Amino acid sequence: MSYFDNVNKVKFEGSDSTNPFAYKYYNPEEQFNGKSMEEYLRFAVSYWHTFTGEGNDPFGAGTAVRPYNHFTGMDLAKARVEASFEFFEKLDVPYFCFHDIDVAPESDSLSETFKNLDEIVLMIKGYMKTSKVKLLWNTANMFTHPRWMHGAATAPNADVFAYAAAKVKKGLEVGKELGSQNYVFWGGREGYDTLLNTDMGFELDNLGRFFHMAKSYANEIGFDAQFLIEPKPKEPTKHQYDFDVATGLAFLQKYDLQDTFKFNIEANHATLAGHTFEHELRTARINGMLGSVDANQGDTLLGWDTDEFPTDLYSTTLAMYEILKNDGLGTGGLNFDAKVRRGSFDTDDLFHAHIAGMDAFAIGAKVAQRLIDDKVLEDFIADRYSSYNNGIGRDIVEGKTDFHKLEQHALQLTQINNKSGRQEQLKSIVNKYLLETFANITVK
Amino acid sequence: MSYFDNVNKVKFEGSDSTNPFAYKYYNPEEQFNGKSMEEYLRFAVSYWHTFTGEGNDPFGAGTAVRPYNHFTGMDLAKARVEASFEFFEKLDVPYFCFHDIDVAPESDSLSETFKNLDEIVLMIKGYMKTSKVKLLWNTANMFTHPRWMHGAATAPNADVFAYAAAKVKKGLEVGKELGSQNYVFWGGREGYDTLLNTDMGFELDNLGRFFHMAKSYANEIGFDAQFLIEPKPKEPTKHQYDFDVATGLAFLQKYDLQDTFKFNIEANHATLAGHTFEHELRTARINGMLGSVDANQGDTLLGWDTDEFPTDLYSTTLAMYEILKNDGLGTGGLNFDAKVRRGSFDTDDLFHAHIAGMDAFAIGAKVAQRLIDDKVLEDFIADRYSSYNNGIGRDIVEGKTDFHKLEQHALQLTQINNKSGRQEQLKSIVNKYLLETFANITVK
Amino acid sequence: MSYFDNVNKVKFEGSDSTNPFAYKYYNPEEQFNGKSMEEYLRFAVSYWHTFTGEGNDPFGAGTAVRPYNHFTGMDLAKARVEASFEFFEKLDVPYFCFHDIDVAPESDSLSETFKNLDEIVLMIKGYMKTSKVKLLWNTANMFTHPRWMHGAATAPNADVFAYAAAKVKKGLEVGKELGSQNYVFWGGREGYDTLLNTDMGFELDNLGRFFHMAKSYANEIGFDAQFLIEPKPKEPTKHQYDFDVATGLAFLQKYDLQDTFKFNIEANHATLAGHTFEHELRTARINGMLGSVDANQGDTLLGWDTDEFPTDLYSTTLAMYEILKNDGLGTGGLNFDAKVRRGSFDTDDLFHAHIAGMDAFAIGAKVAQRLIDDKVLEDFIADRYSSYNNGIGRDIVEGKTDFHKLEQHALQLTQINNKSGRQEQLKSIVNKYLLETFANITVK
Amino acid sequence: MSYFDNVNKVKFEGSDSTNPFAYKYYNPEEQFNGKSMEEYLRFAVSYWHTFTGEGNDPFGAGTAVRPYNHFTGMDLAKARVEASFEFFEKLDVPYFCFHDIDVAPESDSLSETFKNLDEIVLMIKGYMKTSKVKLLWNTANMFTHPRWMHGAATAPNADVFAYAAAKVKKGLEVGKELGSQNYVFWGGREGYDTLLNTDMGFELDNLGRFFHMAKSYANEIGFDAQFLIEPKPKEPTKHQYDFDVATGLAFLQKYDLQDTFKFNIEANHATLAGHTFEHELRTARINGMLGSVDANQGDTLLGWDTDEFPTDLYSTTLAMYEILKNDGLGTGGLNFDAKVRRGSFDTDDLFHAHIAGMDAFAIGAKVAQRLIDDKVLEDFIADRYSSYNNGIGRDIVEGKTDFHKLEQHALQLTQINNKSGRQEQLKSIVNKYLLETFANITVK
Ligand SMILES: [Co+2]
Ligand SMILES: [Co+2]
Ligand SMILES: [Co+2]
Ligand SMILES: [Co+2]
Ligand SMILES: [Co+2]
Ligand SMILES: [Co+2]
Ligand SMILES: [Co+2]
Ligand SMILES: [Co+2]
Repeated sequence: MSYFDNVNKVKFEGSDSTNPFAYKYYNPEEQFNGKSMEEYLRFAVSYWHTFTGEGNDPFGAGTAVRPYNHFTGMDLAKARVEASFEFFEKLDVPYFCFHDIDVAPESDSLSETFKNLDEIVLMIKGYMKTSKVKLLWNTANMFTHPRWMHGAATAPNADVFAYAAAKVKKGLEVGKELGSQNYVFWGGREGYDTLLNTDMGFELDNLGRFFHMAKSYANEIGFDAQFLIEPKPKEPTKHQYDFDVATGLAFLQKYDLQDTFKFNIEANHATLAGHTFEHELRTARINGMLGSVDANQGDTLLGWDTDEFPTDLYSTTLAMYEILKNDGLGTGGLNFDAKVRRGSFDTDDLFHAHIAGMDAFAIGAKVAQRLIDDKVLEDFIADRYSSYNNGIGRDIVEGKTDFHKLEQHALQLTQINNKSGRQEQLKSIVNKYLLETFANITVK
Repeated sequence: MSYFDNVNKVKFEGSDSTNPFAYKYYNPEEQFNGKSMEEYLRFAVSYWHTFTGEGNDPFGAGTAVRPYNHFTGMDLAKARVEASFEFFEKLDVPYFCFHDIDVAPESDSLSETFKNLDEIVLMIKGYMKTSKVKLLWNTANMFTHPRWMHGAATAPNADVFAYAAAKVKKGLEVGKELGSQNYVFWGGREGYDTLLNTDMGFELDNLGRFFHMAKSYANEIGFDAQFLIEPKPKEPTKHQYDFDVATGLAFLQKYDLQDTFKFNIEANHATLAGHTFEHELRTARINGMLGSVDANQGDTLLGWDTDEFPTDLYSTTLAMYEILKNDGLGTGGLNFDAKVRRGSFDTDDLFHAHIAGMDAFAIGAKVAQRLIDDKVLEDFIADRYSSYNNGIGRDIVEGKTDFHKLEQHALQLTQINNKSGRQEQLKSIVNKYLLETFANITVK
Repeated sequence: MSYFDNVNKVKFEGSDSTNPFAYKYYNPEEQFNGKSMEEYLRFAVSYWHTFTGEGNDPFGAGTAVRPYNHFTGMDLAKARVEASFEFFEKLDVPYFCFHDIDVAPESDSLSETFKNLDEIVLMIKGYMKTSKVKLLWNTANMFTHPRWMHGAATAPNADVFAYAAAKVKKGLEVGKELGSQNYVFWGGREGYDTLLNTDMGFELDNLGRFFHMAKSYANEIGFDAQFLIEPKPKEPTKHQYDFDVATGLAFLQKYDLQDTFKFNIEANHATLAGHTFEHELRTARINGMLGSVDANQGDTLLGWDTDEFPTDLYSTTLAMYEILKNDGLGTGGLNFDAKVRRGSFDTDDLFHAHIAGMDAFAIGAKVAQRLIDDKVLEDFIADRYSSYNNGIGRDIVEGKTDFHKLEQHALQLTQINNKSGRQEQLKSIVNKYLLETFANITVK
Repeated sequence: MSYFDNVNKVKFEGSDSTNPFAYKYYNPEEQFNGKSMEEYLRFAVSYWHTFTGEGNDPFGAGTAVRPYNHFTGMDLAKARVEASFEFFEKLDVPYFCFHDIDVAPESDSLSETFKNLDEIVLMIKGYMKTSKVKLLWNTANMFTHPRWMHGAATAPNADVFAYAAAKVKKGLEVGKELGSQNYVFWGGREGYDTLLNTDMGFELDNLGRFFHMAKSYANEIGFDAQFLIEPKPKEPTKHQYDFDVATGLAFLQKYDLQDTFKFNIEANHATLAGHTFEHELRTARINGMLGSVDANQGDTLLGWDTDEFPTDLYSTTLAMYEILKNDGLGTGGLNFDAKVRRGSFDTDDLFHAHIAGMDAFAIGAKVAQRLIDDKVLEDFIADRYSSYNNGIGRDIVEGKTDFHKLEQHALQLTQINNKSGRQEQLKSIVNKYLLETFANITVK
């Protein structure tokens, strides 16, 4: 059976193509940094937005017209699995990601929920055997059901903590079963709505305990996926504990979990926290903790998580710059944690949106690579910091100085010569690379 | 004497050029919509940021290294005039804009201030005779001196109101003397800091009176420049009365000034008000009130007016789209109300920044024109609204229906067929145009 | 049958009371400005949040435990009516408000929807006969169903426009039937998500046409309720056409609808637009267009409409100040367009929240009244603007001057004497009134 | 000589007083937690805003009318010292704080700058001998002069790093000389404007080195003041490295500086970072790092640091709640890092503003203390988390469980019983305490 009859396998046709269902810039087979572009970028489809999402918003019901909308319960779950693999293959994407209840319906009984999940996981495993698609990461949804209203591992209710542990235990088992390369923790309700009723210190201690137990169990069952924390500052809670990368890092250091985790960084979460996407990537990178990426974009004039498909080429270029400087994402990938707009309601939009995002990241990758090849920023930066290569600068870096010597140096300075930061020029150079890199592509 | 020895006349050298002091995309002589690009885009240099600005910020002193920094008073003012005309000519820009006290120092005595201004205006007029540069607009600074602390035309002090009138009267005379094409009102202190001490209704009535008197006087002296209001939502006041275009429009309608004014729309003011730049342009355009543009950009992760030089090609493309649909800006132009970053402190940065901005708008103009030539958005929109071309839709538009007929129509509908808004696809098409338009340029 | 067994009729017990289900500050019978407090404040319960809302959010399912949750369809609708009147009476609140589909389920067939609505309206009318509660306003929900995805009266689909007309036609009939004092238009989807696919001018023209037809029909059936526009800047759409009061005013003036409408001002919508609540009230007031109030509060550190119950006494005081200066709200009232937090899930919270809000507005009313009685702000402002009482100031206000005379006045000024705005002192005085007004209450 | 003739010594006169130059709520001698209110609250005046600040803003010149405005250079510096001690004594405030260049003018020559500073420090020391006022903290201004344009300890220029070291070295010596209780680091320019030209990892490493050298030197000279980092997310730089408390904590842990520093938390910096003031205080408190407080408030509808005097009683109450739970601030205090509005330009406003702030914190302290005395929040929280007192909850807290046991527990749960968070009720209780605490004050 086919769910997406309108669309055949999406292929690279180049920028001259006017076929809306073709890649214009993303060529999975093209070589890039010693790998194929497909292997380097490691795109993943998010099961929740693409197959489970219905297009509802806080003021409106679902709009999504999906070919499996007439099913319910486990039948719906199974139809979605079928549809998803057709979609993965037509899109020619190498990875996918899911929360437990994206793929299998939650029951009032936890054992029944597990049973549903087991059945679907078996089905997915079957499909994976005959498909190239792999599981980038899985996770447990611990924010939708009312039981999580006050948190999961940070809930004021010990039963909820236990329930969360059971869910993550199962998630780790599922991850192992399906060969997942990472396991993600997004603390959707791990935060608070008002300090008036919250023991923040106690809740964070519990979160630390929870993570240690999770790692223990993963070790016990030999599941060696990379653990990832996905920071977000707010929404749904007023204030989430994993506000941003730096906050997550403080937490991991405090609870001696720094070697256990890396970060899964989402563009829209970065901007909600008041940072650029590239700031969060850089912060993780310089701490050796850049794990994976939720590739989307927000609208900085709106104050909530819009999870738009990434099309801003500045953002994809600067993100890919960080990823290239990180020597890629390791076991991580570029997961489209992105949803079509509510008014983009038909299945064609699912293809349009993913194609838009994949092309945008392919363009960004090439522009960033060329900036690096030409050492545009590297040379500028090397010159800018060159005073640290010798003399007092070198002493500073090598730890061979102190406030006495530095004061002596400062007192004998007759003038301090700063160099212009050249922000405007650098931005115009980025524009030139954006336009020229592509021009070269089309020429060849 | 030369102030900018480092730089010769900036010329168009095409995108292959690696000369930092050349236009790569802006070719002033290229034909565009029946005019030269120079005539169509009507770029203007802002005197305040480029010649008067010192690079200070709320936490730091001026950093700008300028070749006339050793002068003071009228000598400084004259040196700036000399430098400015050298700059205009080297940049090959057709317009400039100024506030009164940008060009001539303010004295404690108003008549002395006027005398200073007269002397400098005479000097500017002399320079204009042998230069192609023209005055896009002038205005009166009624926000810097302490006297304006509570407002100018909306001050709680009648003496301040009178002083403001005298300044604008002089400004109109200066505008006439120099052949200014527009006269701008930016109400920097026309607003309030707290409603606890403010009679908002009274202040707005006074502002209405002030504008009527200004127009009367312009008519009296035969100064037929276009009057422009420049909206801004806040900063320096907590709340400015001209919050955005719509707010300005409500004010102008209420005080019967709608035919007297158009809007001067600044990109960064738009985003501070929670709108996109193109939203404000569109709002003005559909009301026939798009007058001129302060071409800059803000940082939507920062909450103040950063007045950066415009380099974001999405922003310049969508802005130029509105301007093209408006059949250009008439007597208005693209004024770089933009300042180099405080760390971009040398005079080369002034060139880099303007070149960056002019290239960015030239690119935007071409991409937008090509989108229009290919009717990319027009065709999509025509189809999207096609139900209004006949039947009940046509009756609605032609005013031939009422709630009875509409209810009858609705009751007989068996299904409502909406079409996808295709936001993701449209964004990817804009990306394609951005990259392809340029590719074609380089090809020829 | 009783739905709220935990709670008896909520009575005023004074600030000494420790009964959580008692008013501590709101005494409905107390005289206030020649009316009872109940008649002056005109509190209303919002049917949608309090009876229809389920406690869901974008990341979570409903949490609300309600005594009618076991019903469905029309049975549920009827149980809610029963429960609502028990709630109104226990809370002793004089008004309520609803959208059509809050009270009666929507069917696939419009005529069936109308039939459902008729049946419930009849039931409500019956309950109203034996209750003191009246309908403050009703409205049509034109944002939840997928058909409204691109707008209602501003939809690109003429069928949707017609459907909207039919819904409002019915709403006007229902309003007349139930003696509603106002009819509200909140344009939840009247806006756009991207200008790339939007003909903004056309959509606004259609909105103007729609409102004229609505007024015509109201006149035709003799429904003389006040029409109210409720501005909101964004959410659910990226950009709503009725951004704020000023934007609404510009629209109403342009389409000659200014005499037909007033504004329903919501506190949280004000802050989302970058204004204080009191700014929006003031803007409406000085234009004679302050109609009614959606009494809630937002969280200015969050970027979405949280619709919290109003408890901030600064906000209620400054809002009541505007309302008192407006001589009350006329046919309008204080409608709690507010929802209990998702974690406040039981029915007791519905009482706690309304009690919190009613007490907060009663406190605000008394503090504001005392500020006015003591002419605290009035005297300060009179002095601050006193220069307009004679001389050149009086000439300005009376229109007896021009730029010539004003310049003459300015030129002879030797010094300008501004007075301090005293913001800090005024704020400390407001604090004193906040604490002292209450102290006096407890003393008596 | 007297600088503030209008005002005599400000005394506590109680809430009945109508004397604008009296404390209505702050009674320095009143006992509070075993100390006098003066000793507990430890108010400090900020030298920069109150004596050095001129009332300028990015769009306007200074407005402040000060009795020493006719002086310049060292004469001005000395007059300010005289005026400041008169002010401290008239205000009866126990502490003050300053940056080096607040008190003594900066020269082109560093040794000259030091000489100026030495002379003024000597003068200050003399005044301190005959005054009760003490130095809460001092710091070095490393953000105003152009040399700091790209940072101080994080500058790309080693000379600037050395200059910064010399300034801090001197600052530590001055702190020791004047018996300062703390030394503050606010990294005004320690951040970046664009990542395009920034080596963030290198800059942070340098910052770590700098702090270690600073501590070494303080130890060397026996200056045992508490070191404090003052986080701020942005402004003046696009992105400051000490974004918020959590970011600072991550940095301190990474560079092994956690035992060397605590935090100086500013209310307005908290809100600029997207947090409440109390969130930042809580984060510091639960990590044992709450050092001192910059007591001001921002305007959450404005996006820059407004540094307003604190008058919001909710904010002062919740802040004092954290401080009380922290057993006070130790060597820290409540420093008014706040400036009078530009329109509050005369010296009376300096008194009005400080009185407003001191009264506001005194009220907050009493309301918070009474909330704690009555265990309002403590009892609610104890009950809310009571499931962790025994059974599985206790096992979790005591580390006696694992994912196996937790899953077993979860699987046998038939229902999970959450309790309402009661946010609305808790907020109304806070309102009651706000009004009642004061009522009691006036009664006695
Ligand atoms: Co994500
Ligand atoms: Co997201
Ligand atoms: Co401007
Ligand atoms: Co600006
Ligand atoms: Co509302
Ligand atoms: Co709302
Ligand atoms: Co501070
Ligand atoms: Co501050």
